[in-house]
Amino acid sequence: MAAIKLGIIGAGSAAFSLRLVSDLCKTKGLSGSLVSLMDIDKDRLNAVHMLAKKFAEEFGADLRFETTTNVEDAIKDSSFVVNTALVGGHSYFEQVRKISEKYGYYRGIDSQEFNMVSDYYTISNFNQLKFMHDVAKAIERISPKAWLLQAANPVFELTNLITRTVPINMVGICHGHHGVDQIIEKLGLDAGKVEWQVAGVNHGIWLTKFMYEGKDAYPLINELLEKEVKSFKPTNPFDDQLSPVAKDMYEFYGKMPIGDTVRNGSWKYHYNLETKKKWFGEPLGGVDSELGWKWYQDRQAEIALAMQKVAKYFQENKNAKLLSKESFAEIISQTKNDVKEEFTKEIYNLLDPQKKSGEQHILLANALLNDEKVDLVLNLPNNGTIPGIPDDVAVEIPVYADKDGIHRYKIDPPLPERITKMYLYPRIMRMEWALEAFLTGDKKVLEEFFIRDPRTKSYDQVVKVIDEILALPGNEEMEKHYGK
Amino acid sequence: MAAIKLGIIGAGSAAFSLRLVSDLCKTKGLSGSLVSLMDIDKDRLNAVHMLAKKFAEEFGADLRFETTTNVEDAIKDSSFVVNTALVGGHSYFEQVRKISEKYGYYRGIDSQEFNMVSDYYTISNFNQLKFMHDVAKAIERISPKAWLLQAANPVFELTNLITRTVPINMVGICHGHHGVDQIIEKLGLDAGKVEWQVAGVNHGIWLTKFMYEGKDAYPLINELLEKEVKSFKPTNPFDDQLSPVAKDMYEFYGKMPIGDTVRNGSWKYHYNLETKKKWFGEPLGGVDSELGWKWYQDRQAEIALAMQKVAKYFQENKNAKLLSKESFAEIISQTKNDVKEEFTKEIYNLLDPQKKSGEQHILLANALLNDEKVDLVLNLPNNGTIPGIPDDVAVEIPVYADKDGIHRYKIDPPLPERITKMYLYPRIMRMEWALEAFLTGDKKVLEEFFIRDPRTKSYDQVVKVIDEILALPGNEEMEKHYGK
Repeated sequence: MAAIKLGIIGAGSAAFSLRLVSDLCKTKGLSGSLVSLMDIDKDRLNAVHMLAKKFAEEFGADLRFETTTNVEDAIKDSSFVVNTALVGGHSYFEQVRKISEKYGYYRGIDSQEFNMVSDYYTISNFNQLKFMHDVAKAIERISPKAWLLQAANPVFELTNLITRTVPINMVGICHGHHGVDQIIEKLGLDAGKVEWQVAGVNHGIWLTKFMYEGKDAYPLINELLEKEVKSFKPTNPFDDQLSPVAKDMYEFYGKMPIGDTVRNGSWKYHYNLETKKKWFGEPLGGVDSELGWKWYQDRQAEIALAMQKVAKYFQENKNAKLLSKESFAEIISQTKNDVKEEFTKEIYNLLDPQKKSGEQHILLANALLNDEKVDLVLNLPNNGTIPGIPDDVAVEIPVYADKDGIHRYKIDPPLPERITKMYLYPRIMRMEWALEAFLTGDKKVLEEFFIRDPRTKSYDQVVKVIDEILALPGNEEMEKHYGK
Repeated sequence: MAAIKLGIIGAGSAAFSLRLVSDLCKTKGLSGSLVSLMDIDKDRLNAVHMLAKKFAEEFGADLRFETTTNVEDAIKDSSFVVNTALVGGHSYFEQVRKISEKYGYYRGIDSQEFNMVSDYYTISNFNQLKFMHDVAKAIERISPKAWLLQAANPVFELTNLITRTVPINMVGICHGHHGVDQIIEKLGLDAGKVEWQVAGVNHGIWLTKFMYEGKDAYPLINELLEKEVKSFKPTNPFDDQLSPVAKDMYEFYGKMPIGDTVRNGSWKYHYNLETKKKWFGEPLGGVDSELGWKWYQDRQAEIALAMQKVAKYFQENKNAKLLSKESFAEIISQTKNDVKEEFTKEIYNLLDPQKKSGEQHILLANALLNDEKVDLVLNLPNNGTIPGIPDDVAVEIPVYADKDGIHRYKIDPPLPERITKMYLYPRIMRMEWALEAFLTGDKKVLEEFFIRDPRTKSYDQVVKVIDEILALPGNEEMEKHYGK
């Protein structure tokens, strides 16, 4: 048993915070812990705080909570700091995208070969990189033994930035590998009898091993893909794990792309809306098209609204039971149908004492502190795990954690060379360029990044798009960093 | 003293062959050697043979020559095989360029970021890669102890291809580092007191060290560049070592780009003729523009013609002396002025007993066989020489050769990380893709190569340009390799 302090930076993101709180409630070994919820949005913070307390109360969990708008408060005395903040929020993404598209950069300048996820900004969101870097340096100063669990994107760039420049314990955490679960479920296999591995970099991971009852089960995936793709009709724009694009990438690279990797192909799948529809399905062309992203933004707004209703309900009904499914049915009766279903499923899951959220943060903390060995997929420096990739590049790989730390599994069979050379290299290269820009403040590096972008037709176009983004309100520090 | 057999494949290239013969004539340690001149063009072969004999005779060198149209004859019993052949010749390049431009690929599909040299075809010249690979395999079979000195381009791709797949002694050889001599000459320095190093990959090398009389002499280059660029007027389209583009690359990457590296920038310098003129100077915009390349082709034709005249003259005047400068003045009196001057200078140089050609092949052979230690710049697998680059990637680095083999100098000071990550990585990546295509015969890899090309707007464009190139007469084997 280890009572700790856990800091959550950006805790106003209720859905994510409650997942961590729910996992904590179900983890006996961390009983007695204090959770420090930090956010700059006090209203959202208070709502999360109230719900978190409610969770703990009903689970009968011995947890304490505090709220703060100060990063250093959340860090002080913490053993683990989860950083899930998004500086500037989604509205900043949309401002940058609008400027980019004016200059011919469809879906925004941060959308790049093998990084098409519409909120994974590696270049224009200087403030995000700066904030994450500062938090890491604050941990080094205030709680040098604490673990930083980097949950906010861009996880790939941030894990590299921090592991290379700040001497603290740090891993990048994503849940993209749960794409494997979708395949297992669709195949109707007993998950306990499946042995699998993924390897690559964040949002670029590949199913290197897929065994069922000790035998190679890739042939089952082949059959499934054939069937699924024949009359592909996504249930929602995220439903791409068994899409034509997944099949095409699999056939070319030799292994299945997992999770967000499917969204992160080359321009072949992303030239324009028509192309996206062909590969990701009608009517939206995947979640990263202009239509799909609108769908996602609307859904996020709806979920935020539902979460507000939940908070309001329990504020007004102090004695109501969170664990009562009836309460929820009532609360979200006004919510749009598709969101209602998903939201309810998520909340029921969090309330189910037998289930975990699927997030890895609490599992990792528990393993390190209480020696409960657990298998995870984490982002950490390669150090020889994937051949051909420099040691200091953060890779996303299967590991296990216990009281002695985090231990890498051997990737066996290894990642095909084609994936390393044709997929990971170009992705790694752009990470290096993004860090070179960030760390040197040399505007010419930003320029070179876009000189090499297939949507660029002239040097003038590059200069203009960068200058207009630098001039955005809120980007004063970025502008100063890169010089006028 | 070591009498050897030296095979020259593609010996019909008279200017190059005579450079090697001239060096051999002046290398006492290789006296008694046999030179096997191989080419499929008998007329050119006979002309070179006659001139080679004449050189040896007049220098009083103990050398023998044989001619053959058969590769295996040139390899058999050879200690060194120099491969300088160009399968398909320049006319093939122009055919591919024409098709490429029709589909929107300015200067041809082989012109790529950091590979803009107009006859360095890494993708569409399958026949060249295939031939070079076959020659290496023939050496393994027939003369397994022989050294293959790869002189023909693409030296970078070919050195990687051969060192990775054929277990023979092999290095890639280029003379691009002589760009340093131009700088030294322009600065009016005593070359004997300059200490320098270059490092990178073929056609992508950087002046990592430049010392004069034991002190850093980079400040002299800074001054020189300022002056030169102010009123830049190239003497010919190759005159770019001190051009605006060289200065811009130097300022961005932190070290001077040397030789062909200046031609191999990003698209910033190459979008179109207007851009090229701005960076490489009026009126031609450098040798790789449509105007510059025409100038170069015309000049090459003129040199070939002059060489024919030389051969004809000595065929008709058996007793005339090669070493008589008067003979040359007479022979080439009809040659165009600018070519005349250059050609005469080159021939006088070859005839000068005190001078070497500047090619490294004979120097290397002499060092290995006669233990005459020599400093060279060669292409060979990295094996840790440049940090951050995989061991099996061929780098162009300073070495010395002696009877024990080829020894690497430490690159000190090291290559700046920005060069490795922003220049070498993208270049290395495309080499990997080219080899992946060549070695697997997977047409989808060719497609992916161009999907990632900034000039590509749609998948359809990629398929069409590839199919039309595959359908060219002479590309039957390539078409079969990649499938219909």
